[in-house]
Amino acid sequence: MTIDLAAVLDHADAGLDESLARLFEFIRIPSISTDRAYTADCRRAAEWLRDQLGALGFDATVRNTTGHLMVVAHGSETAAPHVLFYGHYDVQPVDPLSLWTHPPFEPVLVEAPDGDTHIRGRGASDDKGQLLTFIEACRAWKAVTGRLPIRISMLFEGEEEAGSPSLGPFLEQTADELRADTILVCDTDMWDRATPAITTMFRGLVGEELEITAADRDLHSGMFGSAARNAAHVLAKVLASLHDDDGAVTVPGFYDGVAELPEAIAAQWQQLPFDAEKFLSDIGLSIPAGETGRSVQEMIWSRPTCEINGIWSGYTAEGFKTVIPGKASAKLSFRLVAGQDPDAVRKNFRAHVESLIPADCRVSFKPHGTSPASIMPLDSPLLRQALGALTAEWGVEAAIAGTGGSIPILGEFKRRLGMDSLLIGFARFDNRIHSPNEKYDLSSFRHGIRSWIRILAAFADGAK
Amino acid sequence: MTIDLAAVLDHADAGLDESLARLFEFIRIPSISTDRAYTADCRRAAEWLRDQLGALGFDATVRNTTGHLMVVAHGSETAAPHVLFYGHYDVQPVDPLSLWTHPPFEPVLVEAPDGDTHIRGRGASDDKGQLLTFIEACRAWKAVTGRLPIRISMLFEGEEEAGSPSLGPFLEQTADELRADTILVCDTDMWDRATPAITTMFRGLVGEELEITAADRDLHSGMFGSAARNAAHVLAKVLASLHDDDGAVTVPGFYDGVAELPEAIAAQWQQLPFDAEKFLSDIGLSIPAGETGRSVQEMIWSRPTCEINGIWSGYTAEGFKTVIPGKASAKLSFRLVAGQDPDAVRKNFRAHVESLIPADCRVSFKPHGTSPASIMPLDSPLLRQALGALTAEWGVEAAIAGTGGSIPILGEFKRRLGMDSLLIGFARFDNRIHSPNEKYDLSSFRHGIRSWIRILAAFADGAK
Repeated sequence: MTIDLAAVLDHADAGLDESLARLFEFIRIPSISTDRAYTADCRRAAEWLRDQLGALGFDATVRNTTGHLMVVAHGSETAAPHVLFYGHYDVQPVDPLSLWTHPPFEPVLVEAPDGDTHIRGRGASDDKGQLLTFIEACRAWKAVTGRLPIRISMLFEGEEEAGSPSLGPFLEQTADELRADTILVCDTDMWDRATPAITTMFRGLVGEELEITAADRDLHSGMFGSAARNAAHVLAKVLASLHDDDGAVTVPGFYDGVAELPEAIAAQWQQLPFDAEKFLSDIGLSIPAGETGRSVQEMIWSRPTCEINGIWSGYTAEGFKTVIPGKASAKLSFRLVAGQDPDAVRKNFRAHVESLIPADCRVSFKPHGTSPASIMPLDSPLLRQALGALTAEWGVEAAIAGTGGSIPILGEFKRRLGMDSLLIGFARFDNRIHSPNEKYDLSSFRHGIRSWIRILAAFADGAK
Repeated sequence: MTIDLAAVLDHADAGLDESLARLFEFIRIPSISTDRAYTADCRRAAEWLRDQLGALGFDATVRNTTGHLMVVAHGSETAAPHVLFYGHYDVQPVDPLSLWTHPPFEPVLVEAPDGDTHIRGRGASDDKGQLLTFIEACRAWKAVTGRLPIRISMLFEGEEEAGSPSLGPFLEQTADELRADTILVCDTDMWDRATPAITTMFRGLVGEELEITAADRDLHSGMFGSAARNAAHVLAKVLASLHDDDGAVTVPGFYDGVAELPEAIAAQWQQLPFDAEKFLSDIGLSIPAGETGRSVQEMIWSRPTCEINGIWSGYTAEGFKTVIPGKASAKLSFRLVAGQDPDAVRKNFRAHVESLIPADCRVSFKPHGTSPASIMPLDSPLLRQALGALTAEWGVEAAIAGTGGSIPILGEFKRRLGMDSLLIGFARFDNRIHSPNEKYDLSSFRHGIRSWIRILAAFADGAK
C-alpha cells in the first residue's frame, strides 16, 4: 500500500461524520421522480449534486432534458484510465407512509440488533447513499493529495425510478463528451454482509399498465348485479390467468429463448452461501412461490418473472359502496433473462390479455419501460483490479454475482456509447429499497467510501 | 275526487318551484355517511329535516345514536290509519369525482333529450328527492286543509348507505313510539317512465371486506420476484375463483334454498315490457354476464349474485413502482334471494377464500351489513288503496314489481316492530344512483308529490 492510499483511507474515516451529514442533507430532498408534485425537489437534488461537485473542483453542470435534469461533472485530471461514474438522485415513492417508523425524508441513525447502525430514510441506499460513497472517495483523494488519481467524469440522472426515458437521447447527444474506458455504477448489493460483490448478470424489464373498461359508468350492484359485466372481475380473471398452478408464466412464447443456467455459473452459485429458508423467513414467508422444481436462487436471478405491482378498481375508501366498477386497472412488470425479446414479451402479453376480454368490454395498455437482460464480460483488467481492491478492503474474496434486479441504463450505455459497465455496490439485500423503512448500513457507507478509494488507486496503478 | 283532493293537488303544482328550492337546499348538504369527514354535514342534514318538519307543525326531534342522528316526527292528527314514513338523509360517496359534469353537491336542472328535466346531484334521487315527495305532499295537505288527512309519523336515518347499524337498536328502544299500521318507504323505482310501481320483492345483502397478507412488507420485484408470494396475485386467484365459466357463483352451498321463480310471478314478469338489449346498451354493454340460460330479468331480480365492489393493492399512483405488494384487499357484496341464509353465505364464503390462501399467507375479514331477502304480502287493503291512487295519478295501471336491490331496513322493521312495509318510489332505473351524475326526473318529483297526496286521501277514505 502506498503512503498516499493509507493517508486517504484514514482521512475518509476521520471525516465520516461530515460525510454522513452530507448524506442526510441529500436524503432530506424528497426527489420522487414519478410524482409531478416533487418536480421542484428533483431539481433541488440535481443542483445539490452540481454544487457539491463544483466545490470539489469538478467542472459540474446541470443539463436540461424533456424530463428531470442531468448532472454532468468532469475532473481536471487526465491520468488513465478514464472512468464515467453513473448514479441517480431520484428516489421511489414512499407509500404506504403509515408503515414508516420515521418520516421517510427525515433521516435517522438507528442502532440495529446485529451491532451495525442503520441510516434510515428514502434513498438512504437507493441510490443516494450508494452514489455518495464514490463522491466521498473523490473528496478524500482531493483533500489528501490535492488531485484525483485518474481521470473521472460523472453522470447523474433523475429518472432511474421512472424508467430513464431521457437517458438514451441524452447519451446520444453527449456521446463524445461522456465516452470513457469504463462506466462505474454503484446501485447493487454486496453478496452478504461480509462479502463484497461485482454484479455481472442482470435481468431485463418490461413494465405494463392496463385498464379494463366494462360498463360506461360505475353501476348499482342491486340494480345491475350479475347482468352487467364487472370490470374488477374481468381483471381478476386476467391476472389469475398469468401463472399456472406450478408457478410458470402462461403468456404464450414467454420462455422462448430462455436457456438453462450455464454449468460454470451454476457451480459458482452452489458454492456461495445462500439460505433460501432464511431469505423467505426474513420477509415473513416460508414457501417459494415461483416455478416448481426451481431453486429460490434461480427464481430471483436466472428465471424470468411476471409480477403484479398494483391493482385498483371501484370503491376503496372507508365503509362500503355496493357498486359494480366500470373500470379496473393494474400495473405489472416482467423481469427478463438473456434470450428474451422485451418487445415480443410485451406484444404476447397484450395479445394474451385481449384474448380474455369479453366482446363488449375493452382494454387499453400503457408501456412503462423496456430493457433486455444483460451479462457483463468477465475478462476485463479493470474488473480484476476492482475485485482485488474490494478483497483488500473487506478481507474476504469478492464475489462475481448475478442479480434479479434490472438496470435498464446498462443497455443504453452499451447501445449509445458502446461501453460495458462495472457494477460495484455496497447495499444489502435487507435494505428495504422501494419499501417503507429503507436503510443503508453505516458499515456499507464507510467501507463503500474506502472501497472506492482503493479501486481508484488500483486503476491508477494498473495503468502504469 | 273530493274538492279537497283537487285543491291540494293544484296547490302542490303551484308550489313546485318552492318544493324544488327546498330539495336543492337539502342536496347541498354533503351528508356522506360512510366517510367520517362528513359527520358534521350528516348532522346538518338531520337538523334540516327536523326544522322543516317542525315548521310544518310536526313534533320533530333529532335523537342520538352511536352513529348518525335519527330524526323522528309525529303529526298531531289522530285519524286512522297510522302510517310511519321512513327515509334516509345520507348519501353515497361521490368518487370518481372526475366523471361528474357538475359538482355533486351543487344541484342543477338539466334539460334531457327525452323532454324531461333532470335534477342532477348526489342524493337527488337516493333518497333526498324521493323522501321529499312525501314531505311536500304533507305540506300541501296542511296548506290547503290546515291538517293532515291521517295520523302520520316519520323516521329518517343517516346510515342507510352504511348498512343502517344503529337502526335495529333504535327501533328496539322506540318500538312503542313508532309502531303504526304500515310503514311507507320511498326509495324504489317506477316500473318504467310511464308506469308507477309498488315493489314487494327484495334481495338480501351480505357485505364483506377482506385483506390478504403475504410478505410482511412491500418487496422489490427484482430482488424477490417470483420467489416471494405476491398478495395481489393471491387476491386475483381468489376473486377469479368466485364464478365458474357459466357465470354461476362457486362458493359452496351458495344456491342452497334458492327456489325457481313461482309461476304466477314469472307470468306477470313476462307481460311487463322489458328490453334486455336496451337495458345493457344503456350502460355500454351487450352481453349478459350472469348465469348462462337465465334471462336478464331473472339475473337482476330473482337470482343471487356475487359482485366485487372494489379492489386495491400495491402501487396505484402515477408512474411505475416495481413492487411486490405485501397486502391486497377487496370489498364484495352478495345479493341474496328468498331461502338463502345470510350467515351461512358469509361463513361459506370465508371458508372458500381461506381454502385458497397459501399456507404462509393469511386473510382477515370484515363484515359490512347482513340482511335476508324479503317478500311483502300482496293482500293488504293499504296496498290495494295505494295501487288505486297511483293508477289514478299516472293514468296507467300501477305494477307490482320485484327489485334486485336490497333494503335491509325492511328486515329490521319486521323483526323489531312486527310490521310490513309498502315500498312506493318514483325513481327510474337510469337515475345513476351510487354513480356519478345521479339525477331525479322533475316529473318523478312532481308526480311523486301528487301520488302521495292521493295515497293519503285513499288511506283516509279507506278507513271511513
